[in-house]
Amino acid sequence: MQQFLSVSDSEDPGSLVKKALALKKDPFGNQIGKNKTLGLVFFNPSLRTRMSTQKAAMNLGMNVMVMNIDKDGWKIETHDGAIMDGDNQEHIKDAARVMSQYVDVLGVRTFPALKSREEDYSENVINQFVKHSEVPIISLESATRHPLQSLADLITIEELGIKKPKVVLSWAPHPRILPQAVSNSFLEWIKITDAEVTLACPEGYELDDQFIDGVTICHDQDKAFEGADIIYAKNWSSYHHYGQRLEVKQDWTITSDKMALTNNGKFMHCLPIRRNVVATDEVIDHSIVYQQAKNREFSAQVVLLEILERMK
Amino acid sequence: MQQFLSVSDSEDPGSLVKKALALKKDPFGNQIGKNKTLGLVFFNPSLRTRMSTQKAAMNLGMNVMVMNIDKDGWKIETHDGAIMDGDNQEHIKDAARVMSQYVDVLGVRTFPALKSREEDYSENVINQFVKHSEVPIISLESATRHPLQSLADLITIEELGIKKPKVVLSWAPHPRILPQAVSNSFLEWIKITDAEVTLACPEGYELDDQFIDGVTICHDQDKAFEGADIIYAKNWSSYHHYGQRLEVKQDWTITSDKMALTNNGKFMHCLPIRRNVVATDEVIDHSIVYQQAKNREFSAQVVLLEILERMK
Amino acid sequence: MQQFLSVSDSEDPGSLVKKALALKKDPFGNQIGKNKTLGLVFFNPSLRTRMSTQKAAMNLGMNVMVMNIDKDGWKIETHDGAIMDGDNQEHIKDAARVMSQYVDVLGVRTFPALKSREEDYSENVINQFVKHSEVPIISLESATRHPLQSLADLITIEELGIKKPKVVLSWAPHPRILPQAVSNSFLEWIKITDAEVTLACPEGYELDDQFIDGVTICHDQDKAFEGADIIYAKNWSSYHHYGQRLEVKQDWTITSDKMALTNNGKFMHCLPIRRNVVATDEVIDHSIVYQQAKNREFSAQVVLLEILERMK
Repeated sequence: MQQFLSVSDSEDPGSLVKKALALKKDPFGNQIGKNKTLGLVFFNPSLRTRMSTQKAAMNLGMNVMVMNIDKDGWKIETHDGAIMDGDNQEHIKDAARVMSQYVDVLGVRTFPALKSREEDYSENVINQFVKHSEVPIISLESATRHPLQSLADLITIEELGIKKPKVVLSWAPHPRILPQAVSNSFLEWIKITDAEVTLACPEGYELDDQFIDGVTICHDQDKAFEGADIIYAKNWSSYHHYGQRLEVKQDWTITSDKMALTNNGKFMHCLPIRRNVVATDEVIDHSIVYQQAKNREFSAQVVLLEILERMK
Repeated sequence: MQQFLSVSDSEDPGSLVKKALALKKDPFGNQIGKNKTLGLVFFNPSLRTRMSTQKAAMNLGMNVMVMNIDKDGWKIETHDGAIMDGDNQEHIKDAARVMSQYVDVLGVRTFPALKSREEDYSENVINQFVKHSEVPIISLESATRHPLQSLADLITIEELGIKKPKVVLSWAPHPRILPQAVSNSFLEWIKITDAEVTLACPEGYELDDQFIDGVTICHDQDKAFEGADIIYAKNWSSYHHYGQRLEVKQDWTITSDKMALTNNGKFMHCLPIRRNVVATDEVIDHSIVYQQAKNREFSAQVVLLEILERMK
Repeated sequence: MQQFLSVSDSEDPGSLVKKALALKKDPFGNQIGKNKTLGLVFFNPSLRTRMSTQKAAMNLGMNVMVMNIDKDGWKIETHDGAIMDGDNQEHIKDAARVMSQYVDVLGVRTFPALKSREEDYSENVINQFVKHSEVPIISLESATRHPLQSLADLITIEELGIKKPKVVLSWAPHPRILPQAVSNSFLEWIKITDAEVTLACPEGYELDDQFIDGVTICHDQDKAFEGADIIYAKNWSSYHHYGQRLEVKQDWTITSDKMALTNNGKFMHCLPIRRNVVATDEVIDHSIVYQQAKNREFSAQVVLLEILERMK
């Protein structure tokens, strides 16, 4: 791999799952990262991504430098040709290129503003990093995708060992306006497996066509849950009424009663989760969300490994 | 040791002092921490603890990941069963468990709110970490105790080589409302030594009974100082009138004149110290506070070593 | 070297350039930093310095601890004898000494307040670190100098291989009030080379005599640029009308038209740069600013190496 922004950056994404499971058994077996440095650039908060990616790099013998760009560094201008006489202190093209010069691989986290669909879906920030960086870029979640999360999700599903699992990606309530990145990304990754996939969401919450192509859409949560092996819960704001919160009449919070409709289904979520809003305590406490979170370490490790192997 | 929250977590706390002094002579002699990672989680500011604990871990060959939870990550909910539809983004039980999965030992710093004695003395935050973490928890100062500081204090006192020292823990003025943690902890650790201990404080500033049991209380600072070998200064807010600042008529600032009443006594303080409020420049500049601070490195190192040795 | 605050701390600053270029060819050849720790203390934002200095230390096998003093730690009092009953929580003399005890080399970044020339040019903050630290201090930019930048500038100029280059340090516009540190420092370093140096600035923007001694001053930017091999652009606020922004009638923004007056001159800037204010996109995109930024790694590495070699 030369970069890791979406499922299409890997020639064989399915093989990543198997290699990650091998790394999980022997995390320190390959010290290919000696004298290599990973830079992690955060435009937004991060807990799992921050810690799991650091740990993954250290497992391979890499050094890690973390940069909270807005707090530790300078305010960033993202528009080409800007006359920088306002608050923004450094242009993204300069910051990206300079940071890339001090590291061997650069991870970047950036969230969408959820104001303009065109702007968010252009992936301007991470694409500017790709354009100006001298080293490979790894997405630590971008405006529209979160591939390290999705790869960890697939590792977790592989560990369940269910043949042709029935997987439901279910919208769930949340007090804030959230990105579509985790859901988009989950759909484009789950499609490389043999799973049967249903998207359960209120009307108006359908995702972009490029992600739901080939996916069954169901606006009745109970019906979607029937016989499911895996319930993947996530909130997102509307794609078609971009960034808006639409009126939802039914209660989409995931409860034990709803889980009882499934085929002894496992509950998944990328965390952080709003307890008793997205799902009840009981559902979360009997879920596989921690196994998912732990697998973030190995999804990051296999991606770093593939990138470092190509560099040699 | 399986955790380090208070003096009672060590079967033989006195032995820790001796082992720490051995580590001080040869900090890099034991690389037991290779391929082990220490996570440090800060809910509150920290300078000495942050740096000394990182250094201690690196002395043992460990990797370190630092997480400023409120700045780098998400806002944390601490109440069980909360319906999380407000500002708090992640429940402590999820954050604690997930962070613990990426590390081998997890250190946590949390301060009391000083509003409810019951809440602070329940040690809810650090106890939730203990409950949900998959790895040993080290207190980097909790609501009511600061054991790494106290162990460093005992190492420093041991270095003085005074037999049966007369030790005075003296309250001193401060412009802010402060926790009782350092003082509580100092008392429960000093009791394992052969020291003769006096608590000097204005009326109303006596600490919780569990800490002052067996300790002489003296409300006359001058009298307490007479013949003392060690003056340990610290401010704390009232325990009995919880979190309050009580009217104090005498001047409790520690001056050279007061130190002259002692038996050539040494002045100790955990730092940071308000100069010319807690004690005068002259007192601080002739003190052993820097020796104390340096010993923070070895108190952390011996605790990490004991925990790693038990893991093998 | 025992410290690195200005060009005069090196007995042979010219040799540093050559040694840095050797390190650039073989960054990992000398692991003298094993079991040594670099502490980096930031009172102000930093991107290049933060990352390049960390990378330099890791190249030598050092561990690094980063301290954002105002965000991670306590508010710092800088005045001797202060009665600390206000907001400031720790005196610089205590913070400096304590931090120095946990590391082998300590880097410090501090900016001037630009209110009192006397205060800024006394370099109180970094000098207090020098006074109270138990280990060597490296300036990561202080109130009046930025020697790691200037050394990187000289490395970059050396790579150009121009004999007796004609170098112009040109003032350029900026929306904010900026320090004189980079410009002061560039002048005191460039003087150790065989370069012919001109300072181009509007009237009233001349720098302190100690830096411009022996330097040609020119208030006509076009004239200064004629035949120049190197244009080093930088904004600074007035030294003589201290910290003020003076009225400037001509347009000092550096454009391709102005660069066309030079002898195929190279454009340099320390970054971050306000695009289309200090210089146009076209000028920056055809410049050597990234080479300069990359050389920050080796300027830091050679300084650390010299200090560690002296310690052995």
